[in-house]
Amino acid sequence: MKRKSKIGLPPGEVIFTGNQKVEKVNIHYLKYNSESIFDIILSNHAEIKFANDASTVDWYDIRGIHDEELIKAIGSRFDINSLVLADVVDPLQRPILEEYKSGVFLILKSISFDKSKFKIQVEHIGLYFGLDFIITFQEDHSDVFETVRKRIHNNKGLVRSKKADYLAFALIDNILDQQFVVSDLLQEEIERQEDMILEGAKTESKQNIHFLKKEMIKMQKSITPLREALSRLSRTENQFIDKKNRIYFRDLHDMVIQVKDRVENQRDYLNGLQDLLLSEISFKMNEIMKVLTIITTIFVPLSFLAGLYGMNFENMPELKQQNGYYYLLGFMLLLVVAFWVYFKKKKWL
Amino acid sequence: MKRKSKIGLPPGEVIFTGNQKVEKVNIHYLKYNSESIFDIILSNHAEIKFANDASTVDWYDIRGIHDEELIKAIGSRFDINSLVLADVVDPLQRPILEEYKSGVFLILKSISFDKSKFKIQVEHIGLYFGLDFIITFQEDHSDVFETVRKRIHNNKGLVRSKKADYLAFALIDNILDQQFVVSDLLQEEIERQEDMILEGAKTESKQNIHFLKKEMIKMQKSITPLREALSRLSRTENQFIDKKNRIYFRDLHDMVIQVKDRVENQRDYLNGLQDLLLSEISFKMNEIMKVLTIITTIFVPLSFLAGLYGMNFENMPELKQQNGYYYLLGFMLLLVVAFWVYFKKKKWL
Amino acid sequence: MKRKSKIGLPPGEVIFTGNQKVEKVNIHYLKYNSESIFDIILSNHAEIKFANDASTVDWYDIRGIHDEELIKAIGSRFDINSLVLADVVDPLQRPILEEYKSGVFLILKSISFDKSKFKIQVEHIGLYFGLDFIITFQEDHSDVFETVRKRIHNNKGLVRSKKADYLAFALIDNILDQQFVVSDLLQEEIERQEDMILEGAKTESKQNIHFLKKEMIKMQKSITPLREALSRLSRTENQFIDKKNRIYFRDLHDMVIQVKDRVENQRDYLNGLQDLLLSEISFKMNEIMKVLTIITTIFVPLSFLAGLYGMNFENMPELKQQNGYYYLLGFMLLLVVAFWVYFKKKKWL
Amino acid sequence: MKRKSKIGLPPGEVIFTGNQKVEKVNIHYLKYNSESIFDIILSNHAEIKFANDASTVDWYDIRGIHDEELIKAIGSRFDINSLVLADVVDPLQRPILEEYKSGVFLILKSISFDKSKFKIQVEHIGLYFGLDFIITFQEDHSDVFETVRKRIHNNKGLVRSKKADYLAFALIDNILDQQFVVSDLLQEEIERQEDMILEGAKTESKQNIHFLKKEMIKMQKSITPLREALSRLSRTENQFIDKKNRIYFRDLHDMVIQVKDRVENQRDYLNGLQDLLLSEISFKMNEIMKVLTIITTIFVPLSFLAGLYGMNFENMPELKQQNGYYYLLGFMLLLVVAFWVYFKKKKWL
Amino acid sequence: MKRKSKIGLPPGEVIFTGNQKVEKVNIHYLKYNSESIFDIILSNHAEIKFANDASTVDWYDIRGIHDEELIKAIGSRFDINSLVLADVVDPLQRPILEEYKSGVFLILKSISFDKSKFKIQVEHIGLYFGLDFIITFQEDHSDVFETVRKRIHNNKGLVRSKKADYLAFALIDNILDQQFVVSDLLQEEIERQEDMILEGAKTESKQNIHFLKKEMIKMQKSITPLREALSRLSRTENQFIDKKNRIYFRDLHDMVIQVKDRVENQRDYLNGLQDLLLSEISFKMNEIMKVLTIITTIFVPLSFLAGLYGMNFENMPELKQQNGYYYLLGFMLLLVVAFWVYFKKKKWL
Repeated sequence: MKRKSKIGLPPGEVIFTGNQKVEKVNIHYLKYNSESIFDIILSNHAEIKFANDASTVDWYDIRGIHDEELIKAIGSRFDINSLVLADVVDPLQRPILEEYKSGVFLILKSISFDKSKFKIQVEHIGLYFGLDFIITFQEDHSDVFETVRKRIHNNKGLVRSKKADYLAFALIDNILDQQFVVSDLLQEEIERQEDMILEGAKTESKQNIHFLKKEMIKMQKSITPLREALSRLSRTENQFIDKKNRIYFRDLHDMVIQVKDRVENQRDYLNGLQDLLLSEISFKMNEIMKVLTIITTIFVPLSFLAGLYGMNFENMPELKQQNGYYYLLGFMLLLVVAFWVYFKKKKWL
Repeated sequence: MKRKSKIGLPPGEVIFTGNQKVEKVNIHYLKYNSESIFDIILSNHAEIKFANDASTVDWYDIRGIHDEELIKAIGSRFDINSLVLADVVDPLQRPILEEYKSGVFLILKSISFDKSKFKIQVEHIGLYFGLDFIITFQEDHSDVFETVRKRIHNNKGLVRSKKADYLAFALIDNILDQQFVVSDLLQEEIERQEDMILEGAKTESKQNIHFLKKEMIKMQKSITPLREALSRLSRTENQFIDKKNRIYFRDLHDMVIQVKDRVENQRDYLNGLQDLLLSEISFKMNEIMKVLTIITTIFVPLSFLAGLYGMNFENMPELKQQNGYYYLLGFMLLLVVAFWVYFKKKKWL
Repeated sequence: MKRKSKIGLPPGEVIFTGNQKVEKVNIHYLKYNSESIFDIILSNHAEIKFANDASTVDWYDIRGIHDEELIKAIGSRFDINSLVLADVVDPLQRPILEEYKSGVFLILKSISFDKSKFKIQVEHIGLYFGLDFIITFQEDHSDVFETVRKRIHNNKGLVRSKKADYLAFALIDNILDQQFVVSDLLQEEIERQEDMILEGAKTESKQNIHFLKKEMIKMQKSITPLREALSRLSRTENQFIDKKNRIYFRDLHDMVIQVKDRVENQRDYLNGLQDLLLSEISFKMNEIMKVLTIITTIFVPLSFLAGLYGMNFENMPELKQQNGYYYLLGFMLLLVVAFWVYFKKKKWL
Repeated sequence: MKRKSKIGLPPGEVIFTGNQKVEKVNIHYLKYNSESIFDIILSNHAEIKFANDASTVDWYDIRGIHDEELIKAIGSRFDINSLVLADVVDPLQRPILEEYKSGVFLILKSISFDKSKFKIQVEHIGLYFGLDFIITFQEDHSDVFETVRKRIHNNKGLVRSKKADYLAFALIDNILDQQFVVSDLLQEEIERQEDMILEGAKTESKQNIHFLKKEMIKMQKSITPLREALSRLSRTENQFIDKKNRIYFRDLHDMVIQVKDRVENQRDYLNGLQDLLLSEISFKMNEIMKVLTIITTIFVPLSFLAGLYGMNFENMPELKQQNGYYYLLGFMLLLVVAFWVYFKKKKWL
Repeated sequence: MKRKSKIGLPPGEVIFTGNQKVEKVNIHYLKYNSESIFDIILSNHAEIKFANDASTVDWYDIRGIHDEELIKAIGSRFDINSLVLADVVDPLQRPILEEYKSGVFLILKSISFDKSKFKIQVEHIGLYFGLDFIITFQEDHSDVFETVRKRIHNNKGLVRSKKADYLAFALIDNILDQQFVVSDLLQEEIERQEDMILEGAKTESKQNIHFLKKEMIKMQKSITPLREALSRLSRTENQFIDKKNRIYFRDLHDMVIQVKDRVENQRDYLNGLQDLLLSEISFKMNEIMKVLTIITTIFVPLSFLAGLYGMNFENMPELKQQNGYYYLLGFMLLLVVAFWVYFKKKKWL
């Protein structure tokens, strides 16, 4: 992903700098309170009617942030600062937390691990919430918040009886849960690599470790700033977060620390694997060298002796001796035995 | 250990995410004050009668946290927040400290080192205490607090004359003592590896160091957050901890710093061992190369000479000389001596 | 770049310590408010008339800081401390922020990446702004602020309707955008190196990684102190920055953190590449050693056998056997097959 | 050193966990003021009469902390908390500072370097002082405070005219002086290793560096927490330290930082030595490989030629040529010269 | 440099622990104000008359700190704490800042780089200043403050019109300028090493890098604590530093950060060079191995064939064939071509 496209533009301009993943924008609009629920998918942004109903929570789930006009329309409706909107449509923006008069703004990264491609997929998520509304932004159509949506429908947990702050908590919690899952998958992959190396260093091992390290850096990049953001969110005092719910945000902070610890441990682990791989190669090379040296040490002197008695000097008395050949064979055998003992003593055999 | 099972659940749901280690839940109920003591093991959680007697300390030692119903029952009885309960049954939860109106909550990790399997076993421990009660949670039936229990029975030390805060201190102290023991065992193991390497690098060495490093990471993972938790516990001011007893919690904080220092030093030590191993391999390879080179350097020219006089040219005057063979042998000897001197000078021999 | 030339001079002396890049000084003078705009390039510094018009923003863009007299003249006109002026003309000065009674002073580094020379070009930029004027200093004639200048002319964005603080923001934003672009180019280069290494370690790889690391250090050197400066700028309370505009400076701070994160990740990445390169070389060497050992192991014993039967002993019964030669050939074949099987088992083939 | 022995004991129990080094306890009791001095060695702890004389300073120097009864007796006499006493008799306890109502408590480590065994000896020192008394605890009989004692006897320096706080300062200063000496000895040892490596990597070098690193870790372990303790001591405000003397404790803090810096620099130095050693080995191996390759490259083709003309084909016209042998010898010489030139060009010779 | 000599002495004793570099003490006494200047060199310390004239600045430049009596005399005259004096005569003392009632005390390190010996020379400088006097201490006779002295004589800059605080600033600035120069020289040296390595790893490279690293550590040792001292000096509020001059001390702080950054970058750079050197050696070794393997692979089978037909079996039909010899030569040529093609494909040639 590049930032080039932003050069020369006034700061705060709402320009989508990512890759457009979907053709059309989908807006999932969910309105609920403890009694009723109303769910609709809008494909045309003109259809949205921004309700202002304090008795319900309104969740606008925008899928397709490439539509800059829509983003601006929403921004002006909910009185969102244009710098926020610029961050929403910039997938390179790292996780942040900003508090405004009209609401709280968060950038998050939803991650998933594509095992076949050995790659972590990062989805840029914007989240803006006030007292009784919440807006989530993403480019992809896939529903990263599927499980939360189901819970609202089935009225499981506390979400229906609480305001937008609790929904925000549930959504962030959902994203952190996904990070745990990715961390689990990476752990499996790392352990698979470890087993491979312990069986014997192979050419793939070194590249796989390298790729895993790269994905690890990517993951850490999305978690480290999130930690800071959630730390501030758990301590902040504003009108949008009910005092009683602050404990939930502290729990999020605790979760993100835990993921961060895990990723750091896994990086340590990978570095350990790399060291192991290198010493594995060194050992293997050592073994090869030993074979080479043993062969050379044993056969080179023998060959020399054979060459010696292959010379054509007219006067070589040994050649005329009756048992000269057998004496030589005996001496050669002795040599072999001597070397054998020597190598045994040196622990090369 | 995975977190997958939690995906899609409302946050704060009490779901056991570990491996069930025991069939039945055992509840060890101990009630004591300085005069009397009452001890019973209950196997059915309906049997528990939650006393509310300020004149005694009540210790409920729950072994078997897979029974989510029991955990919830206890939670509602002692007015424990559901996020706490969710942490109690989640063995992946790192050590934390949370203060509530009804009590203080701690997650700890009791560790032991299985020498035969070369593995650190981690047991997830939850600890919740108020003024006159304490609840400990673990999955395994083995009694990690055995020594404290004995002290209470034998009325050794101060524990019988103090309230629940002192018991909490004694329990945490007990867990930290176990960490010292594990650290001792790891130290022994590291020193054994060092001796092995100094005797000569072997194939096991590299893998053993790798495994020890892994266990070290595991141990550090359970100690680092504990340090933070105990630091806060030693400074906190709440009604559950007697001012006079605060000195004990400072002592715990000091202990955990000491274990942390040790583990960090041991990791440094292990990294040093790995460097040593690598230079050991390099030296060994150097030695092998030297032998190979000496053999080659001495015998290859000799063999060439032998081959030279093994040629079948009709006109090779040397071959017809009476003492040609002996002259050649003499020259070969000279060559060997010359190489010998050369290698001595180069310090290869 | 050296600092030698400053030895022996009184501190705060305005001495240009960089390389003079241009012959003549150009001063781009731009005066604007929301209604009107006035733009002129002056080549003689005597031509400048320092206006003092609160209704417009005056931007003096000095290109050519080697003219110490001009710098001093401007300094005395705008009441700028001589230490500031000394920093303006010292290209080795790292990014800083200083607040004075007459204005805010910033040192920035504008960077660009010269792909052909594999080098990051750093341009030293001084920026001084008060309520209604802004002075930028650079040595090179090239217009690093071209895009901002265009925006002012085309009245795009908010810049025409705001005061000097917003222009300062726009200029810094422009420089940070360039750093993103350089970071993108470096990323491309790193990935190109990675592909090269994965195809097989080549001699250039090791030097290219070394050069990239060097440029990375250079880039980090200009970003790390900038972060600190912008952090303070985003928090400072002075009369030159409108309270409403503070949000823009916070955005700059966020941007610089992002570039810093990227550069750090890229350094990690490069270290990973170096490790990959080293294990790649080790693997290749391993492969070469294997070929060498196989050849030696197979042919040395065979050669010995051939040498043995090339000896000239008079009494070697094998030589006189009718099929001796064929028996030997058969035995040699057997040996080759045996080695083949052995190497297959050892996974060397 | 192990902590196992403490498992199962109530916390704060006074249990000696070190190795008993002496048979009997010696108590050196020194009582002085600016006019008079009284010095006695007691071997039976019942003999001690704890004076309470504000006009003199009383220094109880306990050598032999394995006598737990004595420690407890002193503890109860001077109103010392039992956790302090437990730390006094636990040689694994890291340096700490604790302030109590009855006095200030410090754990220190007196170190010495045994050059023959290449080992740092650590002696665990406890120090407790009030306004007019000071108690020092150690296990060994050797007098680590000898120089201070002499100064008191000879009335050198300020110590006789000051209270217990100044004596405490002098004792700690004495221990820090010893650490400087050990650091000097280590420096000498490191430089000796460096010279050895620069002369040519030897087998001992790698092990010596490893041992030095180990001792370095040990030293750092006793200094790092001491720094923290002395930092607090230099800032603390309590009745036991005269305000005028605070400057001395600041000086101690400065000293310990200096030792710490040195040890860290020496560790960097050692790491540098290890890198040097590794590149030294690589260079040596390179040199050996070159010799091997040169020998092989020159003689193998020559040997092949000799072998070729040693073949017994009936029809080999070269063999029958009058000067064939001399032509071949000439060709061989040519080959050798060609290789020589080639290797010279490749800079292998 | 050792500290041994201080063992057993009362703390704060004024004992010179460095190497005496000069025979006699020289005291350069300079007295000036904006109108007049008086300069004299005294060789006998009895000659000094300590003036107390608030209308002038008195600079006592003591060269030769081995004269402990002189130091003490000055100390008592200017009411300097004996701990300060002890630091003045202890060249091992790291840079510090101490504020006293009678003045401000600083320890600095003046460094220079001796290119021929590849060594950084460190000169220990003490600086004590009050409102209208300044005392500088050094052992060497060479004038490290030469340029400042000249400026005072020539009345260049502000120094003559300001008080002792500005002189202190000018002196420290002078020392920092020297550190920049040393840093430049080191940079040149590092780049020279880089060029050498890029041309081909040589034996000197590894040792030169090692030596540069050592000098780097030395330099960092004198800069890191200085940074802390100057940071405090730039923030301190005392009567000796005029509020208006505080900006100069902030500039010093900025300078020392810059030197520190440079040294750190250079250490990174050196580490990069070491990595480059190692991969350079590995590549070279790889190349040597390839030559060895190619030679062996080509000639060993050929030699075997030659040996085969050099056997003396009576019944070897090939030998009797008319063109057997030529067929074999053809086959050998074919083999060589085949290997050539194989190695080309493997990219070994």
